[in-house]
Amino acid sequence: MGKALLTPRAVDFPRWYQDVIAKAELAENGPARGSMVIRPTGYALWERMQRELDDRIKAAGAANAYFPLLIPESYLRREAEHVEGFSPELAVVTIAGGKQLEEPLVIRPTSETVIGESMARWIESYRDLPLLINQWANVVRWELRPRLFLRTTEFLWQEGHTAHASEAEARGYARRILHDVYEDVLVNVLGLPVVVGRKTVRERFAGATSTYTLEAMMGDGKALQMGTSHELGQNFARAFGIGYLGASGRRELAWTTSWGITTRLIGGVIMAHGDDLGLRMPPRVAPVQAHVLVVKEGDGVVETARKLTDGLRDAGVRATLDERVDVPFGRRAIDAELKGYPVRIEVGPRDIVEGRVVVVRRVTGERGPVPVDSVVSLVTAALTADQQTLYDGALAEQKRRTTEVTSVAEAIEAAGSGWARLPWSAVGAEGEAELNVHGVTVRCLLHADGSVPDSEDAPDLVAVVGRAY
Amino acid sequence: MGKALLTPRAVDFPRWYQDVIAKAELAENGPARGSMVIRPTGYALWERMQRELDDRIKAAGAANAYFPLLIPESYLRREAEHVEGFSPELAVVTIAGGKQLEEPLVIRPTSETVIGESMARWIESYRDLPLLINQWANVVRWELRPRLFLRTTEFLWQEGHTAHASEAEARGYARRILHDVYEDVLVNVLGLPVVVGRKTVRERFAGATSTYTLEAMMGDGKALQMGTSHELGQNFARAFGIGYLGASGRRELAWTTSWGITTRLIGGVIMAHGDDLGLRMPPRVAPVQAHVLVVKEGDGVVETARKLTDGLRDAGVRATLDERVDVPFGRRAIDAELKGYPVRIEVGPRDIVEGRVVVVRRVTGERGPVPVDSVVSLVTAALTADQQTLYDGALAEQKRRTTEVTSVAEAIEAAGSGWARLPWSAVGAEGEAELNVHGVTVRCLLHADGSVPDSEDAPDLVAVVGRAY
Repeated sequence: MGKALLTPRAVDFPRWYQDVIAKAELAENGPARGSMVIRPTGYALWERMQRELDDRIKAAGAANAYFPLLIPESYLRREAEHVEGFSPELAVVTIAGGKQLEEPLVIRPTSETVIGESMARWIESYRDLPLLINQWANVVRWELRPRLFLRTTEFLWQEGHTAHASEAEARGYARRILHDVYEDVLVNVLGLPVVVGRKTVRERFAGATSTYTLEAMMGDGKALQMGTSHELGQNFARAFGIGYLGASGRRELAWTTSWGITTRLIGGVIMAHGDDLGLRMPPRVAPVQAHVLVVKEGDGVVETARKLTDGLRDAGVRATLDERVDVPFGRRAIDAELKGYPVRIEVGPRDIVEGRVVVVRRVTGERGPVPVDSVVSLVTAALTADQQTLYDGALAEQKRRTTEVTSVAEAIEAAGSGWARLPWSAVGAEGEAELNVHGVTVRCLLHADGSVPDSEDAPDLVAVVGRAY
Repeated sequence: MGKALLTPRAVDFPRWYQDVIAKAELAENGPARGSMVIRPTGYALWERMQRELDDRIKAAGAANAYFPLLIPESYLRREAEHVEGFSPELAVVTIAGGKQLEEPLVIRPTSETVIGESMARWIESYRDLPLLINQWANVVRWELRPRLFLRTTEFLWQEGHTAHASEAEARGYARRILHDVYEDVLVNVLGLPVVVGRKTVRERFAGATSTYTLEAMMGDGKALQMGTSHELGQNFARAFGIGYLGASGRRELAWTTSWGITTRLIGGVIMAHGDDLGLRMPPRVAPVQAHVLVVKEGDGVVETARKLTDGLRDAGVRATLDERVDVPFGRRAIDAELKGYPVRIEVGPRDIVEGRVVVVRRVTGERGPVPVDSVVSLVTAALTADQQTLYDGALAEQKRRTTEVTSVAEAIEAAGSGWARLPWSAVGAEGEAELNVHGVTVRCLLHADGSVPDSEDAPDLVAVVGRAY
């Protein structure tokens, strides 16, 4: 395929990441520092992720709503840990309509406060619980070291906010979202093996009593936090007066949760699945699953290509057709590879004579002639198989690069190339500080059997540690 | 149904509007001045509108993308009319990350400038044209007299931005969106008869060479501008350097368009179709098309209600089930009426004995017993018929309240209760200023045959004038 368009991953992984994003036309920097333009190729991927998440969020009973972008500064101050966590990252509107505002408005860094205030008004009695709300929105957090999709001053996300009558119910719901929505989409749609666990006190969300997380390993062995689900205890309920009249007639405080997943998912898919030729899109989320290319003109070539495209679409495959014979074929083929289309179908004059086309599978690299009338069945089978292959490959890589250790020193050593697992009892608050000094963090805590702990006090806890984005 | 929950429309239309929004739980004021919380009932309606619009926008070849919320102030200044039009409405971020910004950032009031800057980078040659981009986003315009859905400091919308090789092509595309996307959704999905025409120079968008509009009549005879599509000529192309290498090898400037439709659509549906009992949702856009209510418990009641709900869903009807027998039935029935569900199905013990249920149609007010096994076919037929009835009713009302006149004085008089139509030659710039003094505006100009004019100079032009939201 000629000389490499991308910096090889082994040479400079961050540079490779930037190259892929630019060459595959996923996104670019916006004019204001740390801002991002998500180009159509990148946005189409986000739209598919949104649909998959949104369907599951609705199935979990939450309804979408929309809350204001601009929040009075005083709202954030009502919950002490929350304001402390977000203050350094705020963007503040001080002038509007040509005048200095009396009270500055912050652009939401997250919406716990403004939604909490609404919930306080909407909930009267236990009959109004649980109240399950989700919002798709943009938020702004002023990042000092922005990186496309991973940390940008503005990003897109969904943020769920719920209120419940008991701690047990709130916990159950935060975990239901964690597993039935986030883990399901990450594993089964994005093909990303994740470790699902509990954040340490040091790492948890500002104002939460429990933060659950899903961590995926990227191609360089680092961790990316893919999504989080929080129990907020009664902290926000107390700060915003989210109370209800219980069945017994007593005033009670609600228990709230929040949970979010962002456009950083796109970065995760790039870094976990991409290779030195570019993106490898998991078929289930790929906006284009099969890309039909007319190699060059010839008797019946365009007709066959169109018929194949239609046939694939009729079979439920997201197929596109590239008939731009005035652009060199090699360039178009490389572009298809860069963009990671799971299957590429090349239709040229010589093929037509022989009643066949060439099918190239992006994930396995397999390439070979296929009789025209077998294309649809072969492609649909390939999409299913390659989804699994991507997942299996990522899981094998995660296992290969995860080391079982017994001390903080060993964990720091192992984190040079991947993750380490060690007893949480061998780390503790002091060990965690020591890890942090070396740029290593506790990604999450698990029970020995892999289940998610209710606290960090259980004796059998395992800490998964690593470097992170 | 007992005493009225809403202020009657004839008594105080703006108050009725506020009452409906509050009682049907569509939206409420947010904490910052002029901001809005869109509640789940309102947002579900917006989601359906979005889907209908988005499908058609994609069919017209435009791809979704996302551009930054925050725009350097200097960008807006590059197009003279544009900055003049928007300056008074801007919200400005001056502090971020704890520091005063060197250059203030404005929250986008619209994205022509930041998208123009991207287009200039993306377009190289005529092969890159047309470039067809759409964005779903929030924008902020500081409104002095905010009103829920109609004018809020922040609103949700889609904004399309396209670049073309010729003026004719740009015009064709701006009109394609006007008719094939906006008019189609307004008329055929929202059941809103619209007058589609051209804005006068005085009324057009800041920086546009032509603005096309769709105007609907509300229940009080006022006009609501439902959407606009603009030709921007080469104004933004010049300001941002959106050029391309033509087929002949010469550098050329592109011709651009922009077009948008907002959450104000929700206000339009409320005010055009609502009555003194509340909302009347056009079936095609209604998030809930059929609402099944258990009147009270009894042998087989809940089972029948569930079976009916499932049967409706299987038939493609968006059906919900209300089994809350602990809430008085009357209250639930009134709530269903308020929320404008097109069909309500009441299932009670007495009905079950007789093998029937009661079906109530919101649009016609018809109410009667229906054998259980006829419900699905009756409901699907009612949904189609009532969609048409709503449209026909709104059109008849629009016609009834539109007066043909010949002078500006008569037009001002007629605008007290509806719209006036008169020859544009009898108005002109001076007449338009006179209308404005009386709170009346030229909503749009049409050719005598109802088609949309290319300029305001044709001799046969008709002006449609009225008061507007």
